Amino acid sequence: MELKMDIPALQAFLKTQFPQVAGELEVVALPDNGLTLKLSVHDHHLRPGGTVSGPSMFMLADVAVYLAILARLGPVALAVTTSCAMDFMRKPAAGADLVCEARLLKLGRVLAVGDAMIYSAGQVAPVARASMTYSIPPK
Amino acid sequence: MELKMDIPALQAFLKTQFPQVAGELEVVALPDNGLTLKLSVHDHHLRPGGTVSGPSMFMLADVAVYLAILARLGPVALAVTTSCAMDFMRKPAAGADLVCEARLLKLGRVLAVGDAMIYSAGQVAPVARASMTYSIPPK
Amino acid sequence: MELKMDIPALQAFLKTQFPQVAGELEVVALPDNGLTLKLSVHDHHLRPGGTVSGPSMFMLADVAVYLAILARLGPVALAVTTSCAMDFMRKPAAGADLVCEARLLKLGRVLAVGDAMIYSAGQVAPVARASMTYSIPPK
Amino acid sequence: MELKMDIPALQAFLKTQFPQVAGELEVVALPDNGLTLKLSVHDHHLRPGGTVSGPSMFMLADVAVYLAILARLGPVALAVTTSCAMDFMRKPAAGADLVCEARLLKLGRVLAVGDAMIYSAGQVAPVARASMTYSIPPK
Repeated sequence: MELKMDIPALQAFLKTQFPQVAGELEVVALPDNGLTLKLSVHDHHLRPGGTVSGPSMFMLADVAVYLAILARLGPVALAVTTSCAMDFMRKPAAGADLVCEARLLKLGRVLAVGDAMIYSAGQVAPVARASMTYSIPPK
Repeated sequence: MELKMDIPALQAFLKTQFPQVAGELEVVALPDNGLTLKLSVHDHHLRPGGTVSGPSMFMLADVAVYLAILARLGPVALAVTTSCAMDFMRKPAAGADLVCEARLLKLGRVLAVGDAMIYSAGQVAPVARASMTYSIPPK
Repeated sequence: MELKMDIPALQAFLKTQFPQVAGELEVVALPDNGLTLKLSVHDHHLRPGGTVSGPSMFMLADVAVYLAILARLGPVALAVTTSCAMDFMRKPAAGADLVCEARLLKLGRVLAVGDAMIYSAGQVAPVARASMTYSIPPK
Repeated sequence: MELKMDIPALQAFLKTQFPQVAGELEVVALPDNGLTLKLSVHDHHLRPGGTVSGPSMFMLADVAVYLAILARLGPVALAVTTSCAMDFMRKPAAGADLVCEARLLKLGRVLAVGDAMIYSAGQVAPVARASMTYSIPPK
């Protein structure tokens, strides 16, 4: 799919639309049909025991797939998350950032579907996986 | 199921274990097999357009089912969220708090399953629904 | 919601559209926003050990929510299943039929969301639960 | 992960344990951490309009991930499906078989997690995706 937004445009969009989280998120790659997003893990993402909280991982997967969609549709699109399914498989490595590899499986007229795999930076075994669906508003 | 923690005990547990969110969450009821949790919606839960963010709703559903489990198992249990499936169905009402009604469907030896329905306070149509599963550690 | 199809109309629709399964399915109730569907369990639904197979339970939940939608939209609608999330919680009782209680949570212009709880006939603890979403085609 | 069953052993296991579907399923590959399973599409898998039914695709994904687990644990294991999340994205191509590529994401002591992508044979765009979790019984 052709790109309508590159990495700097996506990063600028994040800053405007998601000011609360833009500072801790970095778009690191835009592979074919995908997008890679890094979360700088801070204390406020952690749960007792040092694990990254579920809501933080949900946010990471949701923003990654959302930006993967916008990169192909352009910033005018106002896609809305309609469902998610996540599996939490391993405790994230202590002190490591999280890297999320999102991939679009369908970018239809009214529905988009993507999945995401979350890793502790530098690790091979995934921490979590997510499937996300979005409703695309009519033009 | 017999209760091992009542509302004040659950609220105290929240304060110790989830200090970042305890101030905005209130356990309002402990019906049979369930638990009702209210989220006081603040600016930091909102997305552009005034809607409550997906991660905030995920947190609300996750904490509600988790506390519903602990109310029956007691505070020693260290259940871990293993999966969630959520549907986001309607935009929350502007300026309204969110109320989450959690219900346990299974509380097994190694796995617990619950679901949750999220409403804008005072509204009948649900905003979101969630299914959550937890792994129960061996004693 | 107003009903556009009653139980005999739904049963006749099943016979025409799902001839392979219509004989083993019976619409037993049409409560507010819901529908109750019974599966007569036969040998071909069973797995080794006498448990009802996952695909049979998926079929039961999918048809139940689908018919719950059609009862309100009428037979012209051609809703398509777009996603499902199921939890399998208990082994069904041996020799018992399965009863599925479906409930519509949203019946929007382009998306419908429902959930379903499956029980062994005469039992209180649910065997499985499902969330299903459907895409509603434009008129 | 080391293999405890090869393709002929898996195919023989299918024949014994899933006699109703073994004849239409073929294990075609055992890649690293994965398994590829082909469904020969027959009339009884079809819905009006010529599409493959949801339950048939659920069965394909479930058996594929299940065999991927058994290939690594051996035939004694009695894993039980505990949850699934599926997205149905495109209508399968008419007259084509379905190919399911399953991949294990976690093979823990008590829980296994896998995902699966389903394609119409010879097509690039996926028809459906699935996440499946299994409970592994204690030895």
